[in-house]
Amino acid sequence: MLEVKAATIQTSPVFGAIQENLHTALDLIPKNCDLVVLPELFATGYQFISRQEALAVAEDVTCRKGDNPICDRLDSLAAERNMTIVAGLAERSGDSLFNSSVLFHPDGSHGVYRKVHLFLDEKLIFDPGDLGFPVFKACGTTLGMMVCFDWIFPEAARSLALSGAEILCHPSNLLLPWCPAAMITRSQENRVFSLTSNRIGREDRTGAPAEFIGMSQIVSPQGELLSRLGSDGEGAAEATLRIVEQDKMLTPSNDLWDDRRPDQYRL
Amino acid sequence: MLEVKAATIQTSPVFGAIQENLHTALDLIPKNCDLVVLPELFATGYQFISRQEALAVAEDVTCRKGDNPICDRLDSLAAERNMTIVAGLAERSGDSLFNSSVLFHPDGSHGVYRKVHLFLDEKLIFDPGDLGFPVFKACGTTLGMMVCFDWIFPEAARSLALSGAEILCHPSNLLLPWCPAAMITRSQENRVFSLTSNRIGREDRTGAPAEFIGMSQIVSPQGELLSRLGSDGEGAAEATLRIVEQDKMLTPSNDLWDDRRPDQYRL
Repeated sequence: MLEVKAATIQTSPVFGAIQENLHTALDLIPKNCDLVVLPELFATGYQFISRQEALAVAEDVTCRKGDNPICDRLDSLAAERNMTIVAGLAERSGDSLFNSSVLFHPDGSHGVYRKVHLFLDEKLIFDPGDLGFPVFKACGTTLGMMVCFDWIFPEAARSLALSGAEILCHPSNLLLPWCPAAMITRSQENRVFSLTSNRIGREDRTGAPAEFIGMSQIVSPQGELLSRLGSDGEGAAEATLRIVEQDKMLTPSNDLWDDRRPDQYRL
Repeated sequence: MLEVKAATIQTSPVFGAIQENLHTALDLIPKNCDLVVLPELFATGYQFISRQEALAVAEDVTCRKGDNPICDRLDSLAAERNMTIVAGLAERSGDSLFNSSVLFHPDGSHGVYRKVHLFLDEKLIFDPGDLGFPVFKACGTTLGMMVCFDWIFPEAARSLALSGAEILCHPSNLLLPWCPAAMITRSQENRVFSLTSNRIGREDRTGAPAEFIGMSQIVSPQGELLSRLGSDGEGAAEATLRIVEQDKMLTPSNDLWDDRRPDQYRL
């Protein structure tokens, strides 16, 4: 059986303090991890007041080395520790700007997911994701990414799981208190691990104060809470994920994939 | 604003004791309800040992008056109290046999949903549902039905909500403890009321003992638990549902229907 040592990191980023935020987050990564998930926009902070402001710190993940302080640092760390890192960041691509989650392979290559469902004022800043819900081979298995508010749309986790994801990596800046419980259901209904990495703290740059709920967690395909942090305090939630590939058998008679009946659904 | 006085009934049926089970269940219905939901297979009990045994007590809901002890009784009560009743029963249709939920309108007409996702040995007894997830006008609004194990497939509640259901009626004989929490997520992700009517007690007719978890509940579109029963004891969970038709606005910027992006999903 494949075992993946995983951690989700919970931080309290200071808006705009990229080097400080990077330092704090990377310092919290446990030794000997195979997979680590960092929060949405973990290095820049969340409440951009304009698209221009976000573009100024957005990174083009296709550029190698140089002007990408966040990607360069994560590339180096992934290589150094032979570790897969998933992290949320503002992504520039031509004239477009996405709220993305980037997968940093130890070999220096990247996987990208662009947030499909934008929350509140993110709609004023970012373009909606245009890559669907891709999955990536990593850590000897298959990973998918979704970002924060994607949790409320069951189609997000479903799309990833149907494409073969065994682990959902879920960088977040959660405001609504409903998500931690809902992600247990997402794990159960898709029989996948889910790793939610959320931030704590508060931002108030737009006149609409945002209080982030923390509660970063790791959930098993059976919905067991393997680890969960609280709402105050930075830290790392850790667990060893024991992966049985494409095990969708809920009961001896119920394979959740075979039991699906798309001909009966309205979608 | 439309108000619907609703109740979900929790009973402990005795296998095969149809008249006794009917009496117990109907006796628990509060006065002046607009809508009441009864459990799956509430009048017959759950663990049929053969298709033949189930066929012997299954009812053809298209037959009017006569040999249908369950439907006839519910027809009469719906008319008498000017109430809509949703109840789970074994349904015969030609040579087919379904684990169905039937909606009894006060005017004597019926709506039928046939359980799409069969659990465990139900697959040996019943045919899988063939009507999709239809919705029905009732109580001045739109109702949908799903039965027990349908909860784990997000497509079930989603299909009903996309077809306009404001209230999900969910007759159940739940064994897994995960469902009550999951139905809160189903309500939140679809912004609909959900009414789960579950049984308690135990059956052991097949060598695989079944312990039913109760916890019948009523959940608001925001995921508030308006009423929930425990795991022991019969009773009625009651709530007044204040319905705002097709209100999918989670935030001033997030209409959960407009935000869906089927072009990005794999389904």
